[in-house]
Amino acid sequence: MLNKPKLIVFDVNETLLNLEPLKLKVNHALYNDFAFDLWFSKLLHYSLVETITEQYADFSSIAAATFRMVAQRFEIDIPDTEISAILSNIKNLPPHTDVVEALTLLKKTGHTMVALTNGNQDVADEQLENAGIKGFMKKVFSVEIVNRYKPHSETYNYVLKAMKTSPKDTLLVAAHGWDIVGAQRAGMKTAFVAREGKFIYPLASHPDLTGKTVLEIAKEITQS
Amino acid sequence: MLNKPKLIVFDVNETLLNLEPLKLKVNHALYNDFAFDLWFSKLLHYSLVETITEQYADFSSIAAATFRMVAQRFEIDIPDTEISAILSNIKNLPPHTDVVEALTLLKKTGHTMVALTNGNQDVADEQLENAGIKGFMKKVFSVEIVNRYKPHSETYNYVLKAMKTSPKDTLLVAAHGWDIVGAQRAGMKTAFVAREGKFIYPLASHPDLTGKTVLEIAKEITQS
Repeated sequence: MLNKPKLIVFDVNETLLNLEPLKLKVNHALYNDFAFDLWFSKLLHYSLVETITEQYADFSSIAAATFRMVAQRFEIDIPDTEISAILSNIKNLPPHTDVVEALTLLKKTGHTMVALTNGNQDVADEQLENAGIKGFMKKVFSVEIVNRYKPHSETYNYVLKAMKTSPKDTLLVAAHGWDIVGAQRAGMKTAFVAREGKFIYPLASHPDLTGKTVLEIAKEITQS
Repeated sequence: MLNKPKLIVFDVNETLLNLEPLKLKVNHALYNDFAFDLWFSKLLHYSLVETITEQYADFSSIAAATFRMVAQRFEIDIPDTEISAILSNIKNLPPHTDVVEALTLLKKTGHTMVALTNGNQDVADEQLENAGIKGFMKKVFSVEIVNRYKPHSETYNYVLKAMKTSPKDTLLVAAHGWDIVGAQRAGMKTAFVAREGKFIYPLASHPDLTGKTVLEIAKEITQS
């Protein structure tokens, strides 16, 4: 069983926000149903390449760079301005349909919530504002401030320190296996959102909670 | 212009060895032409997730774990023994058609060559033996010995120390943008093999050499 967490940290993209509109734009631009998946996986890989080599480029820059690589792979020549226009769709994503109800329930039951994302601070603020869920969050954190990407422990530790909570009193909620394993290894509790096409990393420990939606997880938290 | 390198370090998979037979097996098993690409990208991402969180699981284990995740995404239930059987095809890959001529030329002109791979040591030894190119290499290095994955600087530094060469006298040859950027940031010279579907990372510096094949690069080195 999970004691009531003092702090709930939400991953943003895919966990709270539905990337489907962006996915459609990317797949359409590259004429391939798997272009988005290939690009997003490459984006995550190269964000860690930066951190591993002790460098930092912001997430939007890596997103554009890896998009260029995937476009080349599909032999599509696409101007930088068009890449920017396609990727700017990330700022106007809807929340997943379960999210507002989930956050409302957690707010009502007195939970403190923050967001933590690999995305740029200004993009994350705009995303949550446009999705109508920024008001639920006590604070929106970007890894930009530590110049390292999740799942590096410093990204989680920064939030813990800023919010003055211990890892064991903090629950990370994410739809990404790599985020769950990172939070686990930083000593946090974890809740995995098993959204469509998302799976835990088989070499990680089991998350403390699992649900198909954030709402399922919110119900488990508030009933515990 | 590039001075004659005292040491040439070759990446293995995709750079020297042709992964096409493995790709066909993976795509066939998951009934999708992009399954291999999605899996290989995820494998690379999770190898860095391990290193970023200061853990280590061997490459074969991460390969099987991420294969399981991709199979789940395609809603295919596949026993662990079958995953092992599919992935064991990595041990019997042919060299790319230009490789034997390239290595022969470099050997003739007195170059010292080694291999450095993210793969397990025993797998790498078997791969190069089965491909008939192990004899060209003074040594086969696996990142296993430092328990960190490329492009972490320790992986390159281990080879430099073991071979008693300085980074600026050493040339890394790879078909991967992430390997090139890592070697650059470790101070080494780099040669990018622009094999089909492979592109440099736009946020990296230009490699010292670029060729479509290892043979093109070998010719540039021996003419310099």
